[in-house]
Amino acid sequence: MSFAVTLPDGSKKEFNEPVSVKELASSIATSLGKAAVGAKINGTVKPLDYVVDQDVEAAIITDKDEEGLDILRATAAFLFEAVVKREYDNIRLGQHEASEDGFFVDTDKENQIKVSELPKLEKAMQKAIKNGEKIEYTTMDKSELEGLFKDDPFKLDLLKNEADEVAVYKLGDFVDFGFEALLPNTGKIKQFKLLSVAGAYWMGKSSNPMLQRIFGTAFFKAADLEADLKRREEIKERDHRTIGRDLDLFFVDPKVGAGLPYWLPKGATIRRVIERYIIDKEVADGYKHVYTPVLMNLDAYKTSGHWAHYRDDMFPPMDMGDGEMLELRPMNCPSHIQIYKHHIRSYRDLPLRIAELGMMHRYEKSGALSGLQRVREMTLNDGHTFVELDQVQEEFAKVLKLIMDVYKDFDITDYYFRLSYRDPKNTDKYFANDEMWERSQKMLKAAMDDLGLDYVEAEGEAAFYGPKLDIQTKTALGNDETMSTIQLDFMLPERFGLTYVGKDGEEHRPVMIHRGIVGTMERFIAYLIEIYKGAFPTWLAPVQAEIIPVNLDAHSEYAKKVEEELNKRGFRAEVDNRNEKLGYKIRESQTQKVPYTLVLGDDEMNAGNVNVRPYGTEDQITMSLDEFINKIDADVKSYSREK
Amino acid sequence: MSFAVTLPDGSKKEFNEPVSVKELASSIATSLGKAAVGAKINGTVKPLDYVVDQDVEAAIITDKDEEGLDILRATAAFLFEAVVKREYDNIRLGQHEASEDGFFVDTDKENQIKVSELPKLEKAMQKAIKNGEKIEYTTMDKSELEGLFKDDPFKLDLLKNEADEVAVYKLGDFVDFGFEALLPNTGKIKQFKLLSVAGAYWMGKSSNPMLQRIFGTAFFKAADLEADLKRREEIKERDHRTIGRDLDLFFVDPKVGAGLPYWLPKGATIRRVIERYIIDKEVADGYKHVYTPVLMNLDAYKTSGHWAHYRDDMFPPMDMGDGEMLELRPMNCPSHIQIYKHHIRSYRDLPLRIAELGMMHRYEKSGALSGLQRVREMTLNDGHTFVELDQVQEEFAKVLKLIMDVYKDFDITDYYFRLSYRDPKNTDKYFANDEMWERSQKMLKAAMDDLGLDYVEAEGEAAFYGPKLDIQTKTALGNDETMSTIQLDFMLPERFGLTYVGKDGEEHRPVMIHRGIVGTMERFIAYLIEIYKGAFPTWLAPVQAEIIPVNLDAHSEYAKKVEEELNKRGFRAEVDNRNEKLGYKIRESQTQKVPYTLVLGDDEMNAGNVNVRPYGTEDQITMSLDEFINKIDADVKSYSREK
Repeated sequence: MSFAVTLPDGSKKEFNEPVSVKELASSIATSLGKAAVGAKINGTVKPLDYVVDQDVEAAIITDKDEEGLDILRATAAFLFEAVVKREYDNIRLGQHEASEDGFFVDTDKENQIKVSELPKLEKAMQKAIKNGEKIEYTTMDKSELEGLFKDDPFKLDLLKNEADEVAVYKLGDFVDFGFEALLPNTGKIKQFKLLSVAGAYWMGKSSNPMLQRIFGTAFFKAADLEADLKRREEIKERDHRTIGRDLDLFFVDPKVGAGLPYWLPKGATIRRVIERYIIDKEVADGYKHVYTPVLMNLDAYKTSGHWAHYRDDMFPPMDMGDGEMLELRPMNCPSHIQIYKHHIRSYRDLPLRIAELGMMHRYEKSGALSGLQRVREMTLNDGHTFVELDQVQEEFAKVLKLIMDVYKDFDITDYYFRLSYRDPKNTDKYFANDEMWERSQKMLKAAMDDLGLDYVEAEGEAAFYGPKLDIQTKTALGNDETMSTIQLDFMLPERFGLTYVGKDGEEHRPVMIHRGIVGTMERFIAYLIEIYKGAFPTWLAPVQAEIIPVNLDAHSEYAKKVEEELNKRGFRAEVDNRNEKLGYKIRESQTQKVPYTLVLGDDEMNAGNVNVRPYGTEDQITMSLDEFINKIDADVKSYSREK
Repeated sequence: MSFAVTLPDGSKKEFNEPVSVKELASSIATSLGKAAVGAKINGTVKPLDYVVDQDVEAAIITDKDEEGLDILRATAAFLFEAVVKREYDNIRLGQHEASEDGFFVDTDKENQIKVSELPKLEKAMQKAIKNGEKIEYTTMDKSELEGLFKDDPFKLDLLKNEADEVAVYKLGDFVDFGFEALLPNTGKIKQFKLLSVAGAYWMGKSSNPMLQRIFGTAFFKAADLEADLKRREEIKERDHRTIGRDLDLFFVDPKVGAGLPYWLPKGATIRRVIERYIIDKEVADGYKHVYTPVLMNLDAYKTSGHWAHYRDDMFPPMDMGDGEMLELRPMNCPSHIQIYKHHIRSYRDLPLRIAELGMMHRYEKSGALSGLQRVREMTLNDGHTFVELDQVQEEFAKVLKLIMDVYKDFDITDYYFRLSYRDPKNTDKYFANDEMWERSQKMLKAAMDDLGLDYVEAEGEAAFYGPKLDIQTKTALGNDETMSTIQLDFMLPERFGLTYVGKDGEEHRPVMIHRGIVGTMERFIAYLIEIYKGAFPTWLAPVQAEIIPVNLDAHSEYAKKVEEELNKRGFRAEVDNRNEKLGYKIRESQTQKVPYTLVLGDDEMNAGNVNVRPYGTEDQITMSLDEFINKIDADVKSYSREK
């Protein structure tokens, strides 16, 4: 018997008898033997005890590698499983997973595991770690496992995907499968943390029973764990789903519709203010706002090419009878093209700017859905401008100015520009009209330069149908996200046969500009929640002034008067008339991040004053009601971000 | 041979040999013989030449009967067909119909028949009438007709529905079928008129070719025809589809989606103003506005009972995978119930008023669709209030006051109230809770009486789930239409298990009040277009001031300044900068029913004035721009209806 192991650098090591991964690592270097936590054998991750006995390619995995972290976390998940099996009778286990974000294990028992039980379970895990229990790697026949799990429908379900011989891990009596590689001893885990509990449908289907998913994480170094916990705390503090729940802004219930948010009154107020703001801004900038149907004949999406190339992201078509197939629109462009086509257009009509808060539907996998950020029904701040080729530069600059103007009002400062051209080496991959590409790319660049803006140039990043500018912002998690976009489109005008009569009396093809200022209402407001940490500036705050009478009997009437005066002038004020302590009410108003808390007692009532506590400060300023009205009015008019 | 004819009064006439309808009528009375135009034989309309030879029930039809008018109109349609066959080569005929609204014939030829050709065709018909040509009634074998129409796919298609023996009518060489009864001679027609031409898809399917549908009408008396033409003129003048097209407000294109309106910029402006108005009004009245998804899990509509009882009016469900079936909502109630259920509710939260401009989809047959009036996608000014039973009367009165307040602002004056109770003799047909019915019906009545309102009481007209008040308006066509509604609902709170914690600490069931103020945006605006004849009051007009410079070179700059000043203050002004004559522009502004036309020449420019022509008057008033701003501002603020 003789075989060769090929290492990542191409060198080969010959062996005459079977060798474990651990032994292989040590044979390369003693230090590697110590650092090794597993290996990639022919591209698949295997544990240290895995035995090599034939020609393979092998790469040792150490605690420095990403895969090493996965092995550690999978081991922690496995230990967690073993421990809950010891701690609870009649608990069943579902799916488990280790990833760059930590690990999770799904559990099912009559009384669900609560967050408050996690410390107890952590302690039990720590005890097993201290004891250094052996984790055995072996294989078992599938039929034997089926016998073992005969009363466990979840495990039986998971076994269906396994081959006849199943790799399993054992910790004493406990057996589980579905792990690529684990460490050989619980003593290797050390730095870990159980994080949270959430509901998760079996296999992600809402018609299945809901299990309890326990999240955790593990690291090789204490400092890494500490940094990760701090990062998680920061994200949680900004997580729009958490804030959305705490401030009663919205909810999503997969039972009534996955990815279909319900906007509660306070969230709806924020959205309404933003919608009115953006419409008024666009109308003032020369846009014609329209309403077009969310449904359209499927044929239009065949013409546009969406049905051919984008079908997986679209909802199933509906057969209406009479030969009519209707489709929930995945984008608004074909709708605005209908508006364009409704009249014969001349050069005098251009640029023609059509805009809409257009509701659209996109099919996202249920696993990808998240709060307001990834949804299936969304309303896009959409606009399409139809221009002559000559007008591209001026119109592009105009849109860009509008975008920056809007960003200023929302205090969005962390962004950069990315200008995408076609790949000059592969021009045949793009819509065929060299003159249009050449001229328009120059015009976009010239417009950016004229405005004195810095930008990244990305050759080969243009869409098939034309060059574009993306404006990239950062989410609270630090991810790049396209907030706004200006895209030229040479293709759709061609496909839908759009024309205008030029100065020369001849028919010409317009260029279409797709542009979005703030994207969808859903994602934009998710983003705002995160950058503001829920503390919306006065003009957007669902409640702008919380009015608290010091004494319900004595001051409620005056409080009511102040409320009416404020509401009459178009502000959003409310009185807290609950039978609660003053201090509680003031704290609650702060927790709800209301910009101004007004506390009204005898002094204020007798003088016609209000005592104002601005959000996030310790200040208490007494002023006349008129002064306060001027103050809040100035806030709103200036889109003030004073917090 | 002997048989008996039973007459409507039950008397019988015996005959020994076959008798024509004409002879039968004369045998009853000579005058009836003269007035007869056909008969109902065993319930089916037959012509005068139809021969009776067995026991039948018979009712003679005269020119006084509705069926008599149908026979006349069918004869006119037949004559029209014969005439166009003579006038045009290669013309094919499609469906024909006579009804209480006149008649139509579908035609198909290479150059479509135009409205301008109708007078010529009328003349040709009049000639045939003068000639008194015989219309022969007979029967033919279906196979013979198939041979006759072998090159005519439309007639072959229609023949499929005929029996083997087909009743046909002949006028010289011309033959057609599908008529119940015609008059025996063209000379009987006399009072008729060809009215209009419109496109109509073959068999009403948009995937089929489009034919030309020619409409006409006929009467026995000249005065009746004259009155009918006058009525048609009036309807046309108010028809929201005609006005919608002339004022560029909206369009519907069955090719992209039947019953799915596109709101053009001007129509969208009207809608936006109304939407903001109604939301602000409701928010000020204590409603919490929300946004909820247009899609919902089908299960919710099974719970609500809509799927069982309302399925035919719903869109087809969509299979989303993962066992999820989604449905475009036909109503918003289940969505608002989700909002209610999202929190535990106490008596302190009630009345809880949830409102939304909620988009819904209802499947209407394509033949029933009409402009904005009957559509498949609509946005309802919807609201649901959850109350304790004790609060019904107060809440009902509050909604009623809001409705009347809104009517006043829109100048809706022609309406009446209809209060619907359960049928006291059939209480088991209704949701079973006698106490709720008794108390709530009393409360609704008491509220109406307290407000001093007149109302019609309709026993047995309540919904299954509770009593209601409908507010009925009249359309331009004089039809009754429910504009607003306040409906109590005892059932849905039960079905969805809604509760609140009462003062007693126990769980109670709330009553739900469905209420709509102005109905759907689509139908409401169709209604407004008709009652205003397109002349929207200033606050709603898409363009409030049309600015016309007397001379483009000299006065455009001043016009621009006036436009900017008005727009900056939130008014909707635009300059007509087209290269057209002054008189043309002024007429055009009147045709477009713009409330104020401002003509600006030297005098105005030098004095900083504007020359104002209010819509529908001959007035020309010169005033300062500030005075005009005050005037238009007062208009808007008072929802002025000055025209």
